[in-house]
Amino acid sequence: MASGGPEIEQLIQLLARLPGLGPRSARRAVLQLVKKKEQLMIPLSAALDRAVEAVRSCEVCGNIDTMSPCSICADPRRNDSGMLIVVEDVADLWALERAGVGAVKYHVLGGVLSPLDGVGPEDISIEALLGRAHEFREIVLAVNATVEGQTTAHYITDRLAGSGAKVTRLAHGVPVGGELDYLDEGTLSQALRARTEI
Amino acid sequence: MASGGPEIEQLIQLLARLPGLGPRSARRAVLQLVKKKEQLMIPLSAALDRAVEAVRSCEVCGNIDTMSPCSICADPRRNDSGMLIVVEDVADLWALERAGVGAVKYHVLGGVLSPLDGVGPEDISIEALLGRAHEFREIVLAVNATVEGQTTAHYITDRLAGSGAKVTRLAHGVPVGGELDYLDEGTLSQALRARTEI
Ligand SMILES: [Zn+2]
Ligand SMILES: [Zn+2]
Repeated sequence: MASGGPEIEQLIQLLARLPGLGPRSARRAVLQLVKKKEQLMIPLSAALDRAVEAVRSCEVCGNIDTMSPCSICADPRRNDSGMLIVVEDVADLWALERAGVGAVKYHVLGGVLSPLDGVGPEDISIEALLGRAHEFREIVLAVNATVEGQTTAHYITDRLAGSGAKVTRLAHGVPVGGELDYLDEGTLSQALRARTEI
Repeated sequence: MASGGPEIEQLIQLLARLPGLGPRSARRAVLQLVKKKEQLMIPLSAALDRAVEAVRSCEVCGNIDTMSPCSICADPRRNDSGMLIVVEDVADLWALERAGVGAVKYHVLGGVLSPLDGVGPEDISIEALLGRAHEFREIVLAVNATVEGQTTAHYITDRLAGSGAKVTRLAHGVPVGGELDYLDEGTLSQALRARTEI
């Protein structure tokens, strides 16, 4: 039962559906919002209103932005590298941008092939990728190192044969700052094979 | 740098200030909001708008509700027990309500006495408590079992002397489902002293 009326209960239930928040932390979040009404709740409410109005998916790459084509697709400096990085999710795109990978462009698949879950090529953004592949010299498949990710990478590689673009993938190896004995053997053996001179 | 424009970046920064969410989970939360715009983002935006309008602190007990006096203070069935439960925080009030403790009333202190942090009796809701104590037969000090909580309980007990109300505290003991060897010795010895026949 709600102790704070239906408005509070509904806010808790909606916040509890966000990743990382359960019912308990959603309640704590709502209390924090109410306590900091001027500094937090009203600004958050306004920011959400603005985001609802402004945010959209980029019709070219699938990125989320306030314009479409997004600010990355619309940036002419990003044409020079000729490199398109294919990711599963917008979160991966943002992670690569935070890592400062350079003046590249992206294509967001919006998922991976998963026959067991009924996800086929028509359910993710593969046709759109094939349609723009000719604009790039190199296509980097930055999908996750999962079975589904690798299945998806193989499928895309096959479909891109004859497109003229070089198809590459991210290097496997030891994460920077990573401790060897926490890594699986596959990563370790690949890191050894791909060793570089120092 | 933001990859999704200033509206998204601001939303991430505000969500990251909620308890339980850091920058990383705030980014994931925003992606989830954008992906589920119709089912989640728009309802959350509307729920926040309504809460900003409707939510207020109860002028009697300090609870958070959409009316003041709050629905608990305004409920005449809650007068019969004559019991007032004093808590540190609204979260504690909600926890007791979820536990179904009965037709009681509450008083939210909004903190505990902490001389080291400069929190004195005038900084928490003690005068208001003293002003309504005469309405109750029993006052249960349900403050946390911390040094500050116990200091606060002693201070309130002294100030309530002569009010005519019986002053009690929650029982110490083994939490339901709790494992003995995870409990501190103070709890265990108090649980043994307060043992009951089965
Ligand atoms: Zn784009
Ligand atoms: Zn109240």
